[in-house]
Amino acid sequence: MRWALIGASRIASSYMIDAIRAQDGAEITAVLSSSAERGAEYAQTHGVAQSYTDLDALLSGAPCDAVYISTTNEKHHAQALACIAAGKHVLCEKPLAMSVSDANEMVTAAEDAGVVFATNHHLRNAGTHLAIREQIQKGAVGDVLSIRVFHAVQLPQDLQGWRIDNPEAGGGVIPDIVVHDADTVRFHLDEDPVSVVAKATASGLGEGVEDSVMSVWTMPSGAMVMTHESFTHAFARTGFEVHGTRGSIVARDVMTQRPVGEITLTDADGPRPIAFDAHNLYVRSLGLYYAATRGQGRPSADGVDGIKSLAVALAVKEAAETGREVVVDYGGR
Amino acid sequence: MRWALIGASRIASSYMIDAIRAQDGAEITAVLSSSAERGAEYAQTHGVAQSYTDLDALLSGAPCDAVYISTTNEKHHAQALACIAAGKHVLCEKPLAMSVSDANEMVTAAEDAGVVFATNHHLRNAGTHLAIREQIQKGAVGDVLSIRVFHAVQLPQDLQGWRIDNPEAGGGVIPDIVVHDADTVRFHLDEDPVSVVAKATASGLGEGVEDSVMSVWTMPSGAMVMTHESFTHAFARTGFEVHGTRGSIVARDVMTQRPVGEITLTDADGPRPIAFDAHNLYVRSLGLYYAATRGQGRPSADGVDGIKSLAVALAVKEAAETGREVVVDYGGR
Repeated sequence: MRWALIGASRIASSYMIDAIRAQDGAEITAVLSSSAERGAEYAQTHGVAQSYTDLDALLSGAPCDAVYISTTNEKHHAQALACIAAGKHVLCEKPLAMSVSDANEMVTAAEDAGVVFATNHHLRNAGTHLAIREQIQKGAVGDVLSIRVFHAVQLPQDLQGWRIDNPEAGGGVIPDIVVHDADTVRFHLDEDPVSVVAKATASGLGEGVEDSVMSVWTMPSGAMVMTHESFTHAFARTGFEVHGTRGSIVARDVMTQRPVGEITLTDADGPRPIAFDAHNLYVRSLGLYYAATRGQGRPSADGVDGIKSLAVALAVKEAAETGREVVVDYGGR
Repeated sequence: MRWALIGASRIASSYMIDAIRAQDGAEITAVLSSSAERGAEYAQTHGVAQSYTDLDALLSGAPCDAVYISTTNEKHHAQALACIAAGKHVLCEKPLAMSVSDANEMVTAAEDAGVVFATNHHLRNAGTHLAIREQIQKGAVGDVLSIRVFHAVQLPQDLQGWRIDNPEAGGGVIPDIVVHDADTVRFHLDEDPVSVVAKATASGLGEGVEDSVMSVWTMPSGAMVMTHESFTHAFARTGFEVHGTRGSIVARDVMTQRPVGEITLTDADGPRPIAFDAHNLYVRSLGLYYAATRGQGRPSADGVDGIKSLAVALAVKEAAETGREVVVDYGGR
């Protein structure tokens, strides 16, 4: 499968180029960048044959079957629609778009065109989260009463840019991280948050956007969820906890792109570690994506997953801005 | 000092009787119970000379300088006012009353009468919390960005009673536990929560009252606080975390009446344990109370502390019920 990179991004160079190339018969033929200079340099550095500054030129000129979109968030919608119209499979970065209706339009267009659309939510590919989900599914914690998600980190300097000062590009910790936490909770519980309350603030990094947020969600089962996302927490380890009627799972260092972490299950028999597979998250994700393009199974996070994680993040944003409980609007999905 | 126990309670028999008797010259002369039979049995079991069913009879008949009020919450207000009017020092269980105005009336009456009024918040007497506060004060974490409080436990069967089914008596996890968390956060940060959002539910134990609540608070400094209180979490350890610009303090098993727990400070030099003194929380509290009655210092948590912790809990309750952000009303304190 021949790929074009829509966006000469750090996420592509840090993780996705290698993950794409780890698949049998994969090839990256082109990269799109708004800067010709940056595009050319990026193409050379990463062994990509061609760089473009115009998407239509890329779609008509570069041989490609699939695109990976990792531009700033406000560009995803138009770019995805153009790629879908050109018959390409689309793997799109989160958040899919700036609104649920835009995201819905992208996913509907892909459905109508018969191309495979997926959202790049890495966490449900982690061995840690797969192991946690398996424990939940087999009843190790009984009925789930609550989930706590700790995803307060220090945003690395080289990623700060638009994320900390550009609301129009989708900056702020809510579009950047809450979407991942929403996807992860949905993955574990197989249900979608009903409503949320939240508070957000700027605590040193954010200018015109929030850099920290705490929220509380209600799930259809009655389970409660609390989450904390931040760009300013240098010394807080990440974590994910599932508390149930028969046991608790406490996982540390698991809200990460790397295949690391630790998981402890505690029940009436006391605490014990839970083993997990330490595979590369993105290679697994791409493998499932490849299979889906061959009609086998589905991507780890599909378009509807991307719509729903965006819907939760937008509800958290509205709740934080208004001080009111917000019912999550999934746009009919 | 001669004490009367207003309420033949489990908290008195489990902790307070021993803590009172650990003070020099302390004596417990009487106990009040609404049941003559229970009062007599309690008095005999605990070596208390007299039991009463009528507060006025106790106040006029039993030799006493101070009272410890641990009846159900709706009774505290009238009982405290009567004891203050009789010139007694008052140590009152939390929450002080069912409303901030009632609590304010109690504390104002004590101020006017010149008796020492205190609220039985045990956690600020714990060696763990004293050690955490010392670290914060000396700048070990830099500026505090956020606090996370985990106080979700399994309510022991012998304490379930009114706490899980009687809103008129002040049942529910919010009056029972959120007050402690509010007092503890106030103790650590020396400031009072400004506003809160919250969600509450009944997850198996509560009937007509909530048994679980999650809330997010804003502090005047800009620090954010998230808390989780529950009666239904058998396997979730308690915890208290302080995250700052220069370090994080993570403490486990510290939201408890017992002198236990563990504290880790992580900063640029890595993680290390923080030592703490494992003294009895209630004996320390009573010692400070005794000193205050002799004009030396103040109780660990005074009447105003009790008003403020109640105000935060009532704001959390209103926020959970309305789905709206609630500005905490401290009744002018």
